Amino acid sequence: MSFRTKIAETAKKKKTRIVLALDFPYQNPENRPTLLTKAQQVLEAVHPYICAVKINHHLTLPLGTFNGTQQLINNIHARGLPAIMDCKANDIGSTNQTIAEYYYAAGFDALIANPFVGWEEGLQPIFDVAHKQQRGVILLAYMSHKGAAEGYGQTIYNSETGRKTPQYVSFAKKALKWNADGVVVGATVPEKIAEIHEILGEKVPIYSPGIGAQGGAAETAVKAGARYLIVGREITLAQNPTEIAVKLSSLQTA
Amino acid sequence: MSFRTKIAETAKKKKTRIVLALDFPYQNPENRPTLLTKAQQVLEAVHPYICAVKINHHLTLPLGTFNGTQQLINNIHARGLPAIMDCKANDIGSTNQTIAEYYYAAGFDALIANPFVGWEEGLQPIFDVAHKQQRGVILLAYMSHKGAAEGYGQTIYNSETGRKTPQYVSFAKKALKWNADGVVVGATVPEKIAEIHEILGEKVPIYSPGIGAQGGAAETAVKAGARYLIVGREITLAQNPTEIAVKLSSLQTA
Repeated sequence: MSFRTKIAETAKKKKTRIVLALDFPYQNPENRPTLLTKAQQVLEAVHPYICAVKINHHLTLPLGTFNGTQQLINNIHARGLPAIMDCKANDIGSTNQTIAEYYYAAGFDALIANPFVGWEEGLQPIFDVAHKQQRGVILLAYMSHKGAAEGYGQTIYNSETGRKTPQYVSFAKKALKWNADGVVVGATVPEKIAEIHEILGEKVPIYSPGIGAQGGAAETAVKAGARYLIVGREITLAQNPTEIAVKLSSLQTA
Repeated sequence: MSFRTKIAETAKKKKTRIVLALDFPYQNPENRPTLLTKAQQVLEAVHPYICAVKINHHLTLPLGTFNGTQQLINNIHARGLPAIMDCKANDIGSTNQTIAEYYYAAGFDALIANPFVGWEEGLQPIFDVAHKQQRGVILLAYMSHKGAAEGYGQTIYNSETGRKTPQYVSFAKKALKWNADGVVVGATVPEKIAEIHEILGEKVPIYSPGIGAQGGAAETAVKAGARYLIVGREITLAQNPTEIAVKLSSLQTA
């Protein structure tokens, strides 16, 4: 089963669009066992209310890809959930290929990459590895932080046609052309979600981070066309993670 | 001592501009001990002919940041060399900060980041952490692969001024403004090295990858203005790594 189908079916069955971003602030590397325990506890507390787990360097760097992280992925899979590595890959092709091979070997079902790096000797090798192994590739289209306007929000100029295109529109079109399994668009920019959804239709689902800690509103993002909502610190740093997860998962399926 | 001074003094003392990219193709994660041994052997064979070591995910993913990689960094430091993490960071600010904190805690003297992510809530936290800890930040300006033309080579349009600027020129200007410790420009595009060197002068040194395996020529890159040459597979996959390192380090100081 493809990654795209796997997450869609999980979301449908469990009636939730919430992707848990299992992020924690920097901790002394000596405290690795505590960090792993904390991650497992949050997963245990919220797994009925989420459709996938996204892991970032907050965990892979201290825990190690083939140590703590792999153990965590096994637990995520045991809960019937797919695991996404948010590595924002943006290297040359041969390195991207190696990165994809290691993350997929550790058990990740999909990874996130930056289309800015281009196709030839860029992202093509990641897509090749992903399709061979029935894994997913999700592309960044517009990020959720203020500085995103500098790059994702810039206008690019085609000197042959004289056409001016917003960078994020160009990225959305590449996601279609390259048959990506999703794009990331910040919940902080709902008008961009709508514009990108207009391009992608139902072919490529939109993942929207920035709910809560970064100020993006869940309902607005869904109305604009977001299929999945990525929620991190709002849940992981909560006094009661279950309560927040229940609230968010019910809110936007209403 | 700042990272910029540290690498400059090492290069001057040892009369070499070569930064060793300690990259190896994907290997079964079970073979981690062999991979670490191989990396140590190459380091041992070429350390007199290099001024720094650059590590990428080829090693950090299988070895773990605080396991094999940290051990390797200790060996690199014991040889009097700085260690650079080529993580091409391009996340939101709070994540970038956590990434920088972990890599610096593991002992890295500098890391590489993608300016596409912007300043506010983007790269600013990395620069803040770096300067607090006297570490370095090197920015991508133009990469060495073919697909680089899509992003790094695109033209950006300022709707207020009507001005058209190549993306890599915009990145070079940001490197100056943000006081980066270096920029990366592929040896495969020597005319871009010259153009970026024109902008940066001697203030921000140019690191040039793509020598050998990717077809870039060392002498041309140096003539165009590259201060450091990043060499990976040409050395790490050689029958005799020392021979290649000696040849490359003598060539371009002539």
